[in-house]
Amino acid sequence: MAYRIALIGCGTVGQGFLEILNEKEKFLKKNYDFEAKIVGICDKLKGSIIEPEGIDLDKLLDILKRGERIENYRKEEAGKIEAEYFIDNVEADIMVEVTYTNLQTGEPATAYIKKAIQKGCHVVTSNKGPVALHYHELKKLAEKNNVYFKFEGTVMSGSPIFNLVESSFKGNEILEIRGILNGTTNFILTKMEEGLEYEQALKLAQELGYAEADPTADVEGYDAVAKIVILSNVLFDGKIKPQEVEREGITGISKEDVLNAKEMGYRYKLIASAKKENGEIIASVKPERIPLTEPLANITDIINALCFKLDLLGEVIIQGPGAGRKETGYAILSDILNIHFNILKEERR
Amino acid sequence: MAYRIALIGCGTVGQGFLEILNEKEKFLKKNYDFEAKIVGICDKLKGSIIEPEGIDLDKLLDILKRGERIENYRKEEAGKIEAEYFIDNVEADIMVEVTYTNLQTGEPATAYIKKAIQKGCHVVTSNKGPVALHYHELKKLAEKNNVYFKFEGTVMSGSPIFNLVESSFKGNEILEIRGILNGTTNFILTKMEEGLEYEQALKLAQELGYAEADPTADVEGYDAVAKIVILSNVLFDGKIKPQEVEREGITGISKEDVLNAKEMGYRYKLIASAKKENGEIIASVKPERIPLTEPLANITDIINALCFKLDLLGEVIIQGPGAGRKETGYAILSDILNIHFNILKEERR
Repeated sequence: MAYRIALIGCGTVGQGFLEILNEKEKFLKKNYDFEAKIVGICDKLKGSIIEPEGIDLDKLLDILKRGERIENYRKEEAGKIEAEYFIDNVEADIMVEVTYTNLQTGEPATAYIKKAIQKGCHVVTSNKGPVALHYHELKKLAEKNNVYFKFEGTVMSGSPIFNLVESSFKGNEILEIRGILNGTTNFILTKMEEGLEYEQALKLAQELGYAEADPTADVEGYDAVAKIVILSNVLFDGKIKPQEVEREGITGISKEDVLNAKEMGYRYKLIASAKKENGEIIASVKPERIPLTEPLANITDIINALCFKLDLLGEVIIQGPGAGRKETGYAILSDILNIHFNILKEERR
Repeated sequence: MAYRIALIGCGTVGQGFLEILNEKEKFLKKNYDFEAKIVGICDKLKGSIIEPEGIDLDKLLDILKRGERIENYRKEEAGKIEAEYFIDNVEADIMVEVTYTNLQTGEPATAYIKKAIQKGCHVVTSNKGPVALHYHELKKLAEKNNVYFKFEGTVMSGSPIFNLVESSFKGNEILEIRGILNGTTNFILTKMEEGLEYEQALKLAQELGYAEADPTADVEGYDAVAKIVILSNVLFDGKIKPQEVEREGITGISKEDVLNAKEMGYRYKLIASAKKENGEIIASVKPERIPLTEPLANITDIINALCFKLDLLGEVIIQGPGAGRKETGYAILSDILNIHFNILKEERR
């Protein structure tokens, strides 16, 4: 079965996805009867192309690697294509939305997603903004238009969270979730325990590409807040907004705090948690001193982990990458394969 | 949708399953349109019953709680029912096989499973014997008879393993698996680090019900071998037998070994691992000194964990219960719900 896929955005995640698709072409065809044709790419900075016959990925990835504009794929000069025009004019079965994250408004990504859904495309995104701020609206719109709306990559990149709950916890009630959902702050806290001051650890994280030049979203907890909001609204059918989450970042923690805690058998972690009490969601993101004997205390460096407290199974923890080019690129593929298997089942009817 | 379910075996797992089914009746009906009627139970020690109209679970669980024989459910005296006769005569959609584990021959469970499959029943088991020794044969037989054969509970009880791989790792190649798959030995090693001698730790495990009177299967690694064989044959499509797995138990490890390792920044763990090299499976179960900085070193007490090394996602670890009445009872329910959802999709065709 062959799908026409279009990408809105072609940054790290988009390119990671294209690389995987290119590498795994034969594997996917052979094992899952899955074929993909990239029929268009639209990136605000790198340029755009619409190619109904399908883009040669070797050629395109070379162009991107050389830092050239996407338009160079063709000889003739193309005019600038805006995202709205792109969505209107590209003929795709699945639209992959991987533009930049805006945690204040979710825009312009949310508008792109709506437009794509209304056009009848399945939508896959790893963008936290639209899902944290407009999940229920987008879900309803997708249902109304009879398309899939998937977002595995918004929490813990390609490590399965929504897929895990959907496939493997049925029959359980989720009593509480607690996790380490931001790799940058976890890395900084790990390095502080190894002896670095906060500023040194942050600088190292920036050098390694784990933290951005402006690290506010990570170190003040906004990124983790977006993720716990998504989890709350999806898993607990909540309606909470980011500003309703109690939030404290890690900037108030000194190297001495970290070392003192260690000496007393504890480790500081930026813990995102949520539970439902009397029908109300209580969610927070804040540094907690966790006893070293607890599993979450032993999640170090940039690794993420989420602990589910379930009424039947007790505690189940999934631990895996929380970011990364290939890891988040895989999240996109994973959602698309999921759509593929669902469509296969529908086709068989 | 209503299913007729029959149980062969009614020990801890069988009763755990029945308790969950009874507790969650309304939840399952409301959320998943799932209804179950227990139409028969056959236990070598506790007695048997066939009840086409469905057994009242409150009444039956009371009888079991009082330690009475299952036949007491009815007033009239029933003759003894053998498992073979039971399978032939009970009219069920799904047969749950939860008799005792035999890691040498897999019998009589394997014969029961075959009989049930050939009769056209879906089969769910948490019994390691049949799956470790006869997986490919049983899988083929199930395919031939167009029924499902599920066994999530054979590894890490209800913690999702086969479900996780099936639902969430598609597109990845599994390069290696490494895990702590036996809770009893992990508990003993944890207690030795806390200062107990091996014999004391074993005795405590026995008192708490974690270890059996004859602890050989656990402490000599046979239980973990069965699990790594199941994982190898299912996930790597291997054909290995338990005797091909390099095996060493924990009985050769002293308290001093454990404490010395700790001092040097290591922790002894009974590690089960498997990988495919040049088309061949290499599997082992043996104690390893793991650096304390590695996630598996920090899985303590009776908790189990399995680490998947994946080509796209890197390392993903699932950690959860590895045994228990409710936890393994849930594994049975989880497989049955899986069958239910697949049947629902087929029905819709």
